[in-house]
Amino acid sequence: MISVVILGAGNVATHLYKAFCKIDEVSVTQWYNRSLDAIRTFKNDVSITDDLAQLNEADVYILAVSDDAIKMLSTQLPFENRLVVHTSGAASLYDIDKKHKRGVFYPLQTFSKAAEIDFANVPICIEALESTDYHVLKKMAKALGSPTKKVNTDQRKVLHLAAVFVNNFTNQLYRVAHEITESEGAEFDLLKPLILETAKKVQNVSPYMAQTGPAKRNDKKTLRKHLKLIKNKHHTDIYNLLTTSIQQTHGRKKL
Amino acid sequence: MISVVILGAGNVATHLYKAFCKIDEVSVTQWYNRSLDAIRTFKNDVSITDDLAQLNEADVYILAVSDDAIKMLSTQLPFENRLVVHTSGAASLYDIDKKHKRGVFYPLQTFSKAAEIDFANVPICIEALESTDYHVLKKMAKALGSPTKKVNTDQRKVLHLAAVFVNNFTNQLYRVAHEITESEGAEFDLLKPLILETAKKVQNVSPYMAQTGPAKRNDKKTLRKHLKLIKNKHHTDIYNLLTTSIQQTHGRKKL
Ligand SMILES: NC(=O)c1ccc[n+]([C@@H]2O[C@H](COP(=O)([O-])OP(=O)(O)OC[C@H]3O[C@@H](n4cnc5c(N)ncnc54)[C@H](OP(=O)(O)O)[C@@H]3O)[C@@H](O)[C@H]2O)c1
Ligand SMILES: NC(=O)c1ccc[n+]([C@@H]2O[C@H](COP(=O)([O-])OP(=O)(O)OC[C@H]3O[C@@H](n4cnc5c(N)ncnc54)[C@H](OP(=O)(O)O)[C@@H]3O)[C@@H](O)[C@H]2O)c1
Repeated sequence: MISVVILGAGNVATHLYKAFCKIDEVSVTQWYNRSLDAIRTFKNDVSITDDLAQLNEADVYILAVSDDAIKMLSTQLPFENRLVVHTSGAASLYDIDKKHKRGVFYPLQTFSKAAEIDFANVPICIEALESTDYHVLKKMAKALGSPTKKVNTDQRKVLHLAAVFVNNFTNQLYRVAHEITESEGAEFDLLKPLILETAKKVQNVSPYMAQTGPAKRNDKKTLRKHLKLIKNKHHTDIYNLLTTSIQQTHGRKKL
Repeated sequence: MISVVILGAGNVATHLYKAFCKIDEVSVTQWYNRSLDAIRTFKNDVSITDDLAQLNEADVYILAVSDDAIKMLSTQLPFENRLVVHTSGAASLYDIDKKHKRGVFYPLQTFSKAAEIDFANVPICIEALESTDYHVLKKMAKALGSPTKKVNTDQRKVLHLAAVFVNNFTNQLYRVAHEITESEGAEFDLLKPLILETAKKVQNVSPYMAQTGPAKRNDKKTLRKHLKLIKNKHHTDIYNLLTTSIQQTHGRKKL
């Protein structure tokens, strides 16, 4: 049994808490947040505190707090030589005070309190300085049913950057499509099965192989028609830049 | 029973043929292609031909051919006053010769011969000049189990444009993420659950509400870190443009 103290009460902390509650291999023995309000509803299920001096001894302390708070909070912890990890894709392992055994437990997924998450769909990227610590973290991830991967800091940082492309930027393309369709009274909803199919396709085929469409074919007539149809300068810029990007990838001339 | 002649033997024609074969309400009575090679394997199941003069009488003629071929092929058909439709998102209804009853049967999905398609996930956008023709096309789509939508030419064209954003451009973002992760020896595969989750999220929530991340939060520190991490000028351009786009949508200042 791995004993865990969770620090923070945001999206990641809350999903981790709920997921750990469902499994036998890990026990959350305490939940800390700087204000109790966010965790008061759980007070009958777990020991809660807003006082760092009251923290219990545990195998792992998970700092699921804002990136900017990791360094300071880890310094304030009133003990040393215990395993302390953060959950950030962008923060350094060395943001954690060196008095601790340090690690990273980065769940590569998008969390929000409203949406349920199945940890089978949350790859966990693990980093640790000591191999015994690495194995504790791996055991914890496996217990959640998550795929795990040992990644170094550089790899984790590019994964976090790449996640912005496939999550935030992709979502913004959906938004632009929403704007474009609405402007003609067409229904964005009609695009939803295509959105899903596009994401499903690259589960088995590389994005390179999955590409189709007028940019890849260098179908100049359609490209011209599309540009004429776009009324928003900003949409035009995105159209041109991503068309050029596809053509560079697939060895076509520039637009 | 609706009798159909399919013209063309590409991705769309082949998927339509196979889907119609599975249902009782529609019968494909003949399959035309300019060269027989592509359809010869089906010769025991359906009458095949490469000779327009040999075309049977049918309720609907589906021109599932390249956009550029629609006009000419419709002119060459040796009959008039029958229902002739194309399957293109970009071509005009009026590309079909005016001697015919004209319509559009545009399946808003990505087709490739390799991938199976469930027509329940293929919204079909229907356009017709006469309401009786519209109802035949709607019946045909319903028989496939597809959602249907009456759309006019302008709406269909913006849907086709928007499809480029959510399909081709999104796929290119996946490609860029592939390049970024590979450059550090990180695994693109770790992003696949996030890709799927991002697409799933907007099935129920608008892309506006679904947005998260450093651009939306205007988290300048992370934005700067990311830009420092990107080694490819082209990726930088995409990062900057889509970050600006998100910030415009969400009322933030420019980068
Ligand atoms: N959300 C995601 O999709 C996601 C995915 C992977 C990794 N992560 C990483 O996981 C970590 C947490 O993210 P999140 O989305 O869960 O954040 P969040 O929902 O914004 O919650 C942040 C938590 O940090 C606490 N906090 C902020 N500043 C603090 C300080 N100075 N001292 C103590 N506590 C402080 C907040 O306390 P209050 O409740 O008192 O405000 C809150 O409980 C971050 O490192 C993030 O990069 C997030
Ligand atoms: N693929 C998609 O995801 C998709 C989705 C929605 C709508 N559409 C639309 O559906 C239509 C067909 O697309 P597709 O992807 O199936 O195309 P495709 O796979 O490239 O096949 C094109 C077909 O058109 C035939 N063709 C080309 N030029 C011709 C000509 N001059 N005369 C007679 N036949 C000609 C080709 O004959 P050969 O076999 O002899 O070359 C081939 O059978 C297009 O209007 C397209 O915009 C496609």
